[in-house]
Amino acid sequence: MNLYETTVKNIKKPDCIIMEETQKRLDYLLKPKGSLGKLEDIAKKLSGITGSISNPISKKAIMVMCSDNGVYEEGIASSPKELSTIVAETMVTGLSGVAVLAKHAGAALRVVDVGLDIDSSRHEIVNRKVRRGTDNFRKGPAMSREEAIKAIEVGIDETNKMIDNGYNLIGTGEVGMGNTTTSSAVVYAFTGCDIDTVVGRGAGLTDEAYTNKKMVVKEGVELNKPDINDPLDVLAKVGGFDIAALVGVFLSCASRRVPVVIDGFISGAAALVAYKINPLIINYTFASHGTQEPGGRIISRELGLEPPLYMDMRLGEGTGCALAFNLFDASSAMMNNMGTFGDIKL
Amino acid sequence: MNLYETTVKNIKKPDCIIMEETQKRLDYLLKPKGSLGKLEDIAKKLSGITGSISNPISKKAIMVMCSDNGVYEEGIASSPKELSTIVAETMVTGLSGVAVLAKHAGAALRVVDVGLDIDSSRHEIVNRKVRRGTDNFRKGPAMSREEAIKAIEVGIDETNKMIDNGYNLIGTGEVGMGNTTTSSAVVYAFTGCDIDTVVGRGAGLTDEAYTNKKMVVKEGVELNKPDINDPLDVLAKVGGFDIAALVGVFLSCASRRVPVVIDGFISGAAALVAYKINPLIINYTFASHGTQEPGGRIISRELGLEPPLYMDMRLGEGTGCALAFNLFDASSAMMNNMGTFGDIKL
Repeated sequence: MNLYETTVKNIKKPDCIIMEETQKRLDYLLKPKGSLGKLEDIAKKLSGITGSISNPISKKAIMVMCSDNGVYEEGIASSPKELSTIVAETMVTGLSGVAVLAKHAGAALRVVDVGLDIDSSRHEIVNRKVRRGTDNFRKGPAMSREEAIKAIEVGIDETNKMIDNGYNLIGTGEVGMGNTTTSSAVVYAFTGCDIDTVVGRGAGLTDEAYTNKKMVVKEGVELNKPDINDPLDVLAKVGGFDIAALVGVFLSCASRRVPVVIDGFISGAAALVAYKINPLIINYTFASHGTQEPGGRIISRELGLEPPLYMDMRLGEGTGCALAFNLFDASSAMMNNMGTFGDIKL
Repeated sequence: MNLYETTVKNIKKPDCIIMEETQKRLDYLLKPKGSLGKLEDIAKKLSGITGSISNPISKKAIMVMCSDNGVYEEGIASSPKELSTIVAETMVTGLSGVAVLAKHAGAALRVVDVGLDIDSSRHEIVNRKVRRGTDNFRKGPAMSREEAIKAIEVGIDETNKMIDNGYNLIGTGEVGMGNTTTSSAVVYAFTGCDIDTVVGRGAGLTDEAYTNKKMVVKEGVELNKPDINDPLDVLAKVGGFDIAALVGVFLSCASRRVPVVIDGFISGAAALVAYKINPLIINYTFASHGTQEPGGRIISRELGLEPPLYMDMRLGEGTGCALAFNLFDASSAMMNNMGTFGDIKL
């Protein structure tokens, strides 16, 4: 078996016994039952993941997967293509949104080139290039099945390394011009939802470009006819290397029993693919913020994960994860530091 | 003029010129325009409050106003009345939810007894008692107009002191059995919304107790006939000392040009009263989380403030503010540390 297969096979159910113990502890804390809402949900889910009631987050990281997309040539993105590599560089130089917010959250960034068209001279960007960008899915499959597995394995391998180094909360981020189009295609292929509810305006498109983007997604899926019972087929035919590597991040975390956080639409599409590969990943996966992309709501519904933050953000990069990390720390503080009904006299 | 009148009169408009400058700066940061959503909104609003583009938060505090409510005797609350003082004590001993989450957020707590029925021996609870609990508003006015002003002035005075000591982000919290009932009465009086959409189950009521609570609110408002064009009349007749003191917190912050954060339903009701007294307070006021109390949504709509967090929380105490404070720090980090389009070459 290859790394992909062993990882998928190694994903187990959460520890339901410890989750019940955690629930009892939560109900004994000084508050009406359930009154701390999602902070309690986080604590309970974390206990099922780790097998411990107390889950302080010691080291946090955001895995940023960067690549280019062949479908860019269809005019579906508002930014110049060169921006993929330039934005990846602003991550390691600390200038980008996620770099600033991750630093604020005390989180490391792992920026991985899994398929950028233009090389960067920045050595901090980890070079795990599968190929220089995918093919245009409007003309044929974006990548081969072997390449899809290779990109997933980049995500698994890079995440495993972080977990080996003691990181116990992982976020997801991405860079890649055109990747709301590939994400829309993945969601459209799996769900068959109306194209208007799946495709959004990305970083900001004109009406004309938006109409074109919807047509590109629809025609790309119709041309490639991905088999929705074969998630790798969907990923390879209409996805991207960044999405594939993020699928690997979700699979790695689930197999290693580490919590992993969805950022926005693109990492949500990756979570959906990972969920179709092995539904158990849902027990290890958390939502961060409600994205402005309409397809994001479809993904939330498909995965049954309701985000805690509604920030009207649409930057991507992993910025939502960086904000949500604070809620894990707060949940841990609640669990470990609040008094109990045993502490007061009534 | 008394402290209340001078404070209300001293509230001015935000600085719209600096807000435009802030918008330009935001649009020059390395991201699509507006893509950091509410983080950008916070930065812009803060600049209008302080007159500066850069607004690092140096000291944060949550003002927790504690009091008892005469309407408790109508059986509208699920917890024993003694709990008001006991919970106030768990705030200063660090055991309560808000104590733990405020500490996590690096925020101080100022716990003020503005009308607890039972005295506490804890000297950390600031004694500014107006009276031992209000009267039962189902039988007559909860308090006199003079008492309402006195309680507001406690909130103004205590908040002014914190601002004098360098606190530049203020949250609101409360303790008081029965205070979702008084808050519902305030919202019902002002809005006339259907009683089912104004009254919730508070910390957790049975069906029977919930039906009773709705009747108490409806009958209390009908009996007292508060003049909705006179916010002090509404506050005095069907409010509480905790709500009144929180009105003072909002007025103080607006007059001193310091941002102030609504917690949940009770502090939201206080913000609504403050808004009716002087609509300019809205420029200084931020939402934290969407509360589970149905009346909370009505308040959000009335004030036009959309919360960034949806945590399904209903503990109150100021816990939502403690979580939201992180977003102010994140917004400041964005503003001060992100790169600009001048930093990259395209």
